[in-house]
Amino acid sequence: MRNLITVLLLFLSVVGFAQNRKAYNEIDKKIDKLLSEMTIQEKVGQMTQIAVEILLKKPGSLTEPDELDPEKLAQCIKKYKVGSILNIGITAQTRENWHKWIETIQDMALKERVKIPVLYGIDAIHGNNYTANSVLFPQQIAQAASFNRALVKKAAEITAYETRASFIPWTFSPVLDLGRKPIWSRVYETFGEDPYLVSELGKAMVTGYQGSSSSIDKYHVAACLKHYMGYSMSLTGLDRTPAWIPERELREYFLPSFAAAIAIGAKTVMVNSGEINGVPVHTNKYILTDVLKKELKFKGFALTDWMDIQFLVDRHHVAKDYKEATMMAINAGIDMSMVPVDYTFCDDLVALVNEGKVSMSRIDDAVRRILRVKFDVGLFDNPVGKASDYKEFNGVAHNKTNYEITSECITLLKNTNNLLPLKTDKKILVTGPAANSMVALNGGWSRRWQGTNSDETEKDKNTIYEAIQNVFGSKNVDFAQGAKFNAPSDLNTALSKSEKADVVVLCLGEDSYAETPGNIQDLTLPAAQLELARALKASGKPIVLVLTEGRPRIISAIEPLCSAVIHAYLPGNEGGNVVANVLAGKVNPSGKLPYTYPRYPNYLFNYYRKYTEEVDNSYNPQWEFGYGLSYTTFKYSNLKLSSKVLTEGQPITVSVDITNTGNQMGKESVLLFVSDLVASITPEAKRLRAFEKISLEPGKTQTVTFKITGEQLSFVDATLKRVTEPGEFVVTVGDQKATFNYR
Amino acid sequence: MRNLITVLLLFLSVVGFAQNRKAYNEIDKKIDKLLSEMTIQEKVGQMTQIAVEILLKKPGSLTEPDELDPEKLAQCIKKYKVGSILNIGITAQTRENWHKWIETIQDMALKERVKIPVLYGIDAIHGNNYTANSVLFPQQIAQAASFNRALVKKAAEITAYETRASFIPWTFSPVLDLGRKPIWSRVYETFGEDPYLVSELGKAMVTGYQGSSSSIDKYHVAACLKHYMGYSMSLTGLDRTPAWIPERELREYFLPSFAAAIAIGAKTVMVNSGEINGVPVHTNKYILTDVLKKELKFKGFALTDWMDIQFLVDRHHVAKDYKEATMMAINAGIDMSMVPVDYTFCDDLVALVNEGKVSMSRIDDAVRRILRVKFDVGLFDNPVGKASDYKEFNGVAHNKTNYEITSECITLLKNTNNLLPLKTDKKILVTGPAANSMVALNGGWSRRWQGTNSDETEKDKNTIYEAIQNVFGSKNVDFAQGAKFNAPSDLNTALSKSEKADVVVLCLGEDSYAETPGNIQDLTLPAAQLELARALKASGKPIVLVLTEGRPRIISAIEPLCSAVIHAYLPGNEGGNVVANVLAGKVNPSGKLPYTYPRYPNYLFNYYRKYTEEVDNSYNPQWEFGYGLSYTTFKYSNLKLSSKVLTEGQPITVSVDITNTGNQMGKESVLLFVSDLVASITPEAKRLRAFEKISLEPGKTQTVTFKITGEQLSFVDATLKRVTEPGEFVVTVGDQKATFNYR
Repeated sequence: MRNLITVLLLFLSVVGFAQNRKAYNEIDKKIDKLLSEMTIQEKVGQMTQIAVEILLKKPGSLTEPDELDPEKLAQCIKKYKVGSILNIGITAQTRENWHKWIETIQDMALKERVKIPVLYGIDAIHGNNYTANSVLFPQQIAQAASFNRALVKKAAEITAYETRASFIPWTFSPVLDLGRKPIWSRVYETFGEDPYLVSELGKAMVTGYQGSSSSIDKYHVAACLKHYMGYSMSLTGLDRTPAWIPERELREYFLPSFAAAIAIGAKTVMVNSGEINGVPVHTNKYILTDVLKKELKFKGFALTDWMDIQFLVDRHHVAKDYKEATMMAINAGIDMSMVPVDYTFCDDLVALVNEGKVSMSRIDDAVRRILRVKFDVGLFDNPVGKASDYKEFNGVAHNKTNYEITSECITLLKNTNNLLPLKTDKKILVTGPAANSMVALNGGWSRRWQGTNSDETEKDKNTIYEAIQNVFGSKNVDFAQGAKFNAPSDLNTALSKSEKADVVVLCLGEDSYAETPGNIQDLTLPAAQLELARALKASGKPIVLVLTEGRPRIISAIEPLCSAVIHAYLPGNEGGNVVANVLAGKVNPSGKLPYTYPRYPNYLFNYYRKYTEEVDNSYNPQWEFGYGLSYTTFKYSNLKLSSKVLTEGQPITVSVDITNTGNQMGKESVLLFVSDLVASITPEAKRLRAFEKISLEPGKTQTVTFKITGEQLSFVDATLKRVTEPGEFVVTVGDQKATFNYR
Repeated sequence: MRNLITVLLLFLSVVGFAQNRKAYNEIDKKIDKLLSEMTIQEKVGQMTQIAVEILLKKPGSLTEPDELDPEKLAQCIKKYKVGSILNIGITAQTRENWHKWIETIQDMALKERVKIPVLYGIDAIHGNNYTANSVLFPQQIAQAASFNRALVKKAAEITAYETRASFIPWTFSPVLDLGRKPIWSRVYETFGEDPYLVSELGKAMVTGYQGSSSSIDKYHVAACLKHYMGYSMSLTGLDRTPAWIPERELREYFLPSFAAAIAIGAKTVMVNSGEINGVPVHTNKYILTDVLKKELKFKGFALTDWMDIQFLVDRHHVAKDYKEATMMAINAGIDMSMVPVDYTFCDDLVALVNEGKVSMSRIDDAVRRILRVKFDVGLFDNPVGKASDYKEFNGVAHNKTNYEITSECITLLKNTNNLLPLKTDKKILVTGPAANSMVALNGGWSRRWQGTNSDETEKDKNTIYEAIQNVFGSKNVDFAQGAKFNAPSDLNTALSKSEKADVVVLCLGEDSYAETPGNIQDLTLPAAQLELARALKASGKPIVLVLTEGRPRIISAIEPLCSAVIHAYLPGNEGGNVVANVLAGKVNPSGKLPYTYPRYPNYLFNYYRKYTEEVDNSYNPQWEFGYGLSYTTFKYSNLKLSSKVLTEGQPITVSVDITNTGNQMGKESVLLFVSDLVASITPEAKRLRAFEKISLEPGKTQTVTFKITGEQLSFVDATLKRVTEPGEFVVTVGDQKATFNYR
C-alpha cells in the first residue's frame, strides 16, 4: 500500500520548488555569501533569541512604557551578535514605541560588520495583542467554532497587517496542537479536538498570516507553528507534563496539522516544551530532524520555547549542565534558542563548535534556515517599515471583520421553548463574574501574557453588560456581580435584583490565564459560580447562561437550571456586542462546538473515540462535538453518492440538500463524518472528513457537494504507513447516512 | 550496555531448566504421544474453554445450586472435546456440589478416546470466593498495603488449598496490572501503582498458589497472571477502553511484574481485553509471541479473557467475522479461548486449519502448552481429588491468617490529637452505608461476580458495626445507616443519635462492583455520603472516618471534618473485626498506602512522577504513596552506605536504624526510594527499589539492611534496552538521605 501523505507532500514540494526556483536561487546565493563571511560568534548570534525585557532601562517595571537601554542593547547586538528578539512579560506597547524600539535595534544591527537585521517575534495570537489598540479577535478555540475557513484567514490577514503595522514581521501563531484534553490550560489557543478541523483552519490562518507567496510582503508576517508536536496530550492534561504518545498515534493525530501547514510553506515552528515517551522533544532528533526536516522537507527553522534548553537541565534532568543541554538540543535539530534572559547559550555554543561537539555544518544549516526566513519576510530590504503604510490599523474594516467572525463563533447550546431571542422590552438582570468584564471576554495573551488588565486597556469596548444596555436600553437592564470567579460575592444583591427582572442573563466562566499558571485541579466550574446559579434559580425567573471560558468547565449541576445556554468561549473585543445581539436576535448564532463538552470530571472522551468506548451505553457528554443550535431550523435530505464504490484513482462525490425550514436567514456548518467499519487498526466510531459553511435564506435549499478521496479515508497502520484499506464505510451528514465500499 | 533483564531471565531459565530437566523430558514424551494420537477436533477442543453456565440444567437461575445437564455436557465433552471449563455468573457452590460437578466432568472426559482430563479454572482472587464458606481475604489492593511478602504468600497458599479443596486446580489470579489510574474499576484487584511492589507481591502470591516446585501438588493450584499486559492504563481510566502505551513505557512499567512471575514459573497468563496503540492485544503477535513466549521464554499457555475473540469483531472492529478473528488471535499466539458460551470457535478453528490459514504447528504448540499445565497440576494422576484431604478448609488456622493479614492492611491516615485508640467505655455511633455491610467489606468477586450477596452469604462474619459492638459492648454502641451509597437515607436518625454519642464512627465507601459495571464518571465520593459527613460535623462530636472502597474516592471536601481516618480498602471477612480492634487499640495499624490518594478529580499523579511535574508547586495529594500512621512512632537514623560508588559487579549495602520511640509494639514497612539525578530518559523524581517490614517492641532499635545492585537502578532507554547509566543517585529511607555514584 502506498504512503499517500508522503506522495502528496512530495507533489506539493515539487510544485513549490518549481514555482520558487528562481527566487530561491538568488536568496541562496546571498545566504552563501553571508555565511562565508560570518564568524562562529556571528553565526551563533543568529541562532540566539533574547527577551526585550533584559534590554530595557527599567526591566522591573514591565507594565510601563519603557526605553531600550543602549548599553544592554549593545551587549546583545554588538557583543553577542544576537539575531532575534521577542517579548512576553511586557504590557502592550504603542505603535510609536514599537517603531522606536525596532528602529533602534535595526540601526544598531545594520551597523555591524555583517549587516543582518534582527528578526523580532511576537505572540500575536488573537490579533496583535501586544500592541495597544490593535483589534483583539476571538481566541482560536472560538474561531474554530465558526467552521469558517475564509473568516479565519481574514482575521489572520488583519492580525498580520496590525503586527506589521507594529514593525514586527513574525508571529508565534497558530497553535496547531489538538485541544483534546479539556483540563489543559491552552485549549483556548487551539482549534479544538479534531485533527482535520485543526489542519484546515491551520492552513487558513497560515495563509492569512503569510499570504500566498513564498516571499512575504509588508502586510504579512511569517507564521510559527506551535508546538511541534504532541504538546497537548500530556498524561495528566496539565501544561508541560509528560506525554505518552506512541508513534502511530503521533502520526495519526498530531502530525497532520503540522504537515499540512508546512506543505503550504509555513516559515517557522516552535517546539513542544514537554517530553514524549521519556524524551524531551527539544532533544529528539527523530522528531526534529528526521521527521520535520527530512520527511516533511521543512525549509524554515525550528525555535525552542521559553528557556527550554535550560529546562533540559532544571526540569527534565537529561543533561548535567546547560552546555551539555545546548549540545543535545542543537544536534537534535534546534535552529534557534529562545534563550532568552542571558548569553550563556552563545558562549557555550561557540565553545561546543570549537570543541567539535557541534559540527559547523549543523550551525551553517541552522543559520541558513534563519537567514532564509529573514530574506523571505523582506527584512534585508525593509528592516523597519513605514508607519504611514498602515492606515487601516484598528480601522472600521478591521473591527467589522472582528464582529463578523465573532458572530459566527458564538454557539447556542440550549434554548428551551425558544426563550431566545428576547424581546427588547424585557427587563434583564445581567449578573455573574463575567458579566461586566473585558478580562473574561479576552482571556490570556491580551495586552499582557496573563491577560489581567483588559478591563483597563479595553475600556472603549463593551462588556456583555454594557452591550446589553446598548441593545436593550439602560432602563431595562440592571447589574449585580453575584459572585467572583472563585469566591462568593454580592450574592444577595443579585438575588434581590432578580426579583424585578423578567429574565436573568447569568455570565459565568473563567478568569484570565495563559500556559502553566492556568493549570487547574478540578474541571468543574468553581463552587461559588454554581452557587450563584442555584440561588438565582429560586427566583423563578428564566436563566440564560452565557459561558466565557477557555476550556469546557463542567456545568452539569446547573445546566438543568438554565433555560438557554450560550457558549461564547473567549470571544475577544466584540464578544460583548455579539452576545447582546444574539440575545436580541440581531445575530443568528451559527457556531458549533469544536470539542466534546464533558458532563463529568472523570469521564472524558473525544468524539472520535473507538467502538470499544461506544459499547459503554452510559456515554453521554453534556454536548457533542459539532453541536450548536440556530434561531432557524435546517433540514438535511437527499444524501447521494456518485458511486457506491471508491477506488484510489476514482473519488466519489457526496451531495446533500440543506433546507432552511425556519423563518429567518441562518448559517449552517455542514459536517461530513465517515466511519470505517473494519480496519487493521481499531477504527474510530467516526471521523470528520469534510465540512462547509453555508448561508441560507428561509425556505431556500442548497445542495452541498463534497469529494471523498481514498486518502481522506486513510489511517496510519501498525507499520506506521498511511494506508486506505478496502472495505465498507458509512458516510454521515446531519441525519443522513449512506454506505460505500473502498476497493 | 548489556540488557540486564534478559541476562537475569536467561539465568533463571537455565537454572529452572536444569532443575526440571528430567521431569520435563518425561512429560514431554507423554505430550508427544498424546499429540500424535489426537485429531484436529481433539486438539482444538483442548484450546477451548466453555462456561459451566451453559452446561447447567437451569442456566437462567444462576443463584441457585444447580446440576449439570448430561446432554449439554456431552455436547461439550464428547462432541467438541472441550478441554477447559470456567464459571463466572454462578453464585458460590458448596464443596459437595463442586465435587459432584468436577467428578461428572472428569468421568466423561476420561471415557473419551484420548483420556485427557478437563482443566477447570476459577476466579479465586481473594480466597476461593466461588466456594461457599471459604475464607475471604482482603482484596489485593488491601494486601498490598501490608507490604508483607510472607503474609501475601500465606494467604495465597490458603486460597490454593481451599480451591483445591473444591477440586479445582487453577485460579485466574494474581492481577499483575498496575493500579495507576484511580478511576479504574479494577484498582482493588491490583497491588497498587508501583511496579516493584506489584512484582514483589506478585511473586509472593504466585509462589503461594503454585508452591516452589514446577510440578504442583494437591494443595496448590496453577496461577494465571492477569492481564498481560498494559490493561490498567487506558486513556480514560475506564475499563477495557483504548490505551496508548509506547513500547518504552510498556517495558519500563508494565512488563516487569509479568516477567518476574514468569521467571519463577507461573503457569498461565490471561490476555488484556483492551487495545494498545490501536491494536487489540488479542491480535498482537509481538506482545503474545515475540515478547511473552520468545523473550520471556514463557512455557505455559495464554488464555483469552471472556469472549475476547468474538469482541475482535463486535467491539474492536478489526475482523469482519468471528472466523477471521479466530485466525488472527490464534496466529498471534493465543493458546486457549475463553469462548465461552457456544462452540463456533471449535468449528471455525478446525476449518481454518483445514484451509491452511492456521498451521498445525501453531495448534500443536498451543496444545502442548495446555497439556503441560495439565500434567504439571497433576490432573492426569489426580483428576478430581479427595474431599477428605482438605480438613483445614475454612478452619481456625486459615481464619487466623486472614485476621493477621487484614491487621497489617488497615492504614491509619489521620489521627488528630491521638483521638485513636478509643477507650472501650466510649459511647459510639456507628453510621454510614458501609457500617453494617459485608458487601462493603468484600466488594466484587465475593460468592458472586458483582459481590452483591455478601450480606446473606457472610451472615456469620462481623460487619464493622457488629464487631464494634463485640469490642465496645452493645450498650455503648448505636447504629444508624445515615445514607445509602448513592442516595440520602435516614440522615435525621443518624443526626439525632449522634447527639448521644461521644464519638461518631462514619463508615463511607463504595457499593460492590467488578470490571466494566464498576465504571464511574466522577472520582469524588457520592454527594449523599459527603452530605452525611457534613451534617454529622454539626453535632460537634469527633468523627472517625472509616473508608471501605476499591479505589481512592476523593474526600477532600470532608477530610477536614474528620479527626481520624482509617483506610480499610476492601478488607474481606475479617475487616469488621480488625477495624473494631484498631479503634480499640488492640491492633496497632501498620498498613501504608499502595497508591497515591488524590485530592482533586483532575489532578492525578503517581508518586513516581517526573521532575517536570515536581516543578508544579501545587502538587499536594490527599496522602502520598507509602503514607500510613501507627499508634507508636518510629525514628529513622544512621543511614549508611557500604560505599559511595556502585559498579555493575559490586552492589552496595544500605543500612538504616529504626527505633520504636513510642510506647507500644508496632510494625513498620521500611521503604527505600532511589532518585536518578540525570539520565537519558527523563528520570522519575523517585522510585521504590526495596522494602522490608519489621516488628519492633517499644524502645528497641533494629538495623535494616538493603542491597542495591546496578540492575535495581536500571531503566529502559530510548532504544528499548534496559540500562544503568553512570551518574549520581540519591537514596532515601524515611527522612534519611545519602548520595552515591554508579560507575
